[in-house]
Amino acid sequence: MPDSSFQDYYPDHMAHCYGCGRLNEFGHQIKSYWDGEESVCHFQPDAHHISIPGYVYGGLLASLIDCHGTGTAAAAGYRAEKRAMDSEPALRYLTASLHVDYLKPTPLGILLEVRGRVKEVKGRKVVIEEWINANGVITVRGELVAVQVPDQLVLELLGQKK
Amino acid sequence: MPDSSFQDYYPDHMAHCYGCGRLNEFGHQIKSYWDGEESVCHFQPDAHHISIPGYVYGGLLASLIDCHGTGTAAAAGYRAEKRAMDSEPALRYLTASLHVDYLKPTPLGILLEVRGRVKEVKGRKVVIEEWINANGVITVRGELVAVQVPDQLVLELLGQKK
Repeated sequence: MPDSSFQDYYPDHMAHCYGCGRLNEFGHQIKSYWDGEESVCHFQPDAHHISIPGYVYGGLLASLIDCHGTGTAAAAGYRAEKRAMDSEPALRYLTASLHVDYLKPTPLGILLEVRGRVKEVKGRKVVIEEWINANGVITVRGELVAVQVPDQLVLELLGQKK
Repeated sequence: MPDSSFQDYYPDHMAHCYGCGRLNEFGHQIKSYWDGEESVCHFQPDAHHISIPGYVYGGLLASLIDCHGTGTAAAAGYRAEKRAMDSEPALRYLTASLHVDYLKPTPLGILLEVRGRVKEVKGRKVVIEEWINANGVITVRGELVAVQVPDQLVLELLGQKK
């Protein structure tokens, strides 16, 4: 793994997300990396991230698919433009749609592996397919359509920051 | 609104969910009710449930769709069987699949209204369509396929409880 995750490159004004923002002290602060043609993120749910006893809450699993997906979308955007993630302009994506299939209950108390694969990069849109691996068993499959944050919204955010 | 929400009727061994369990002191503890043919839940995100500044984190919105949906599925199950939610056997549902379309950013700092409508009740499966209303604007639409918790899993949970 490289030292810096996809999320480490998010500009400060877009690094507050509860799921993936390194500046959100209350959040999950997930970290995603390339692993060849796939992206990978490891996450250990807390004991209170429970659904039925012994299993992980589906909302958290959806959140992992969501934020690992937008992170992978950003990394895929830079790759498509053949430039480094610390180059300008910064690319950041929002989720347009999210689909999650819960194949079987995901056990609580173990480190989960979230994996992603880029299905499509087309203009400002990126489609990522993902899955969650719990001790060698795929318990969740998901797909995310991400779109680059609109320029007008970026300007508004920078305005808020001043 | 009646005094008791759908989630108040969950049996104790299924009332620990981070999203909707009344026994999860760290969780969201959402409360859902019938409002005629629709179900409704109100939820105020915290300041740290942020995505980009000023807007709600998509993972939380997916969680609301998820847990309001499984709650509505349970209530729909009792309705289909023409019996009260405090009658036995208790009905509890898991999410089989979740789809969320983020139509526009959802503003942070206001009370959100999550609404659901039953599309289908067929055997152990219930399909719920949902939407999130932020100050009169629908920002999110979702659909959830819920399935009744398998009997074997219920027995295991009750075994854990002993």
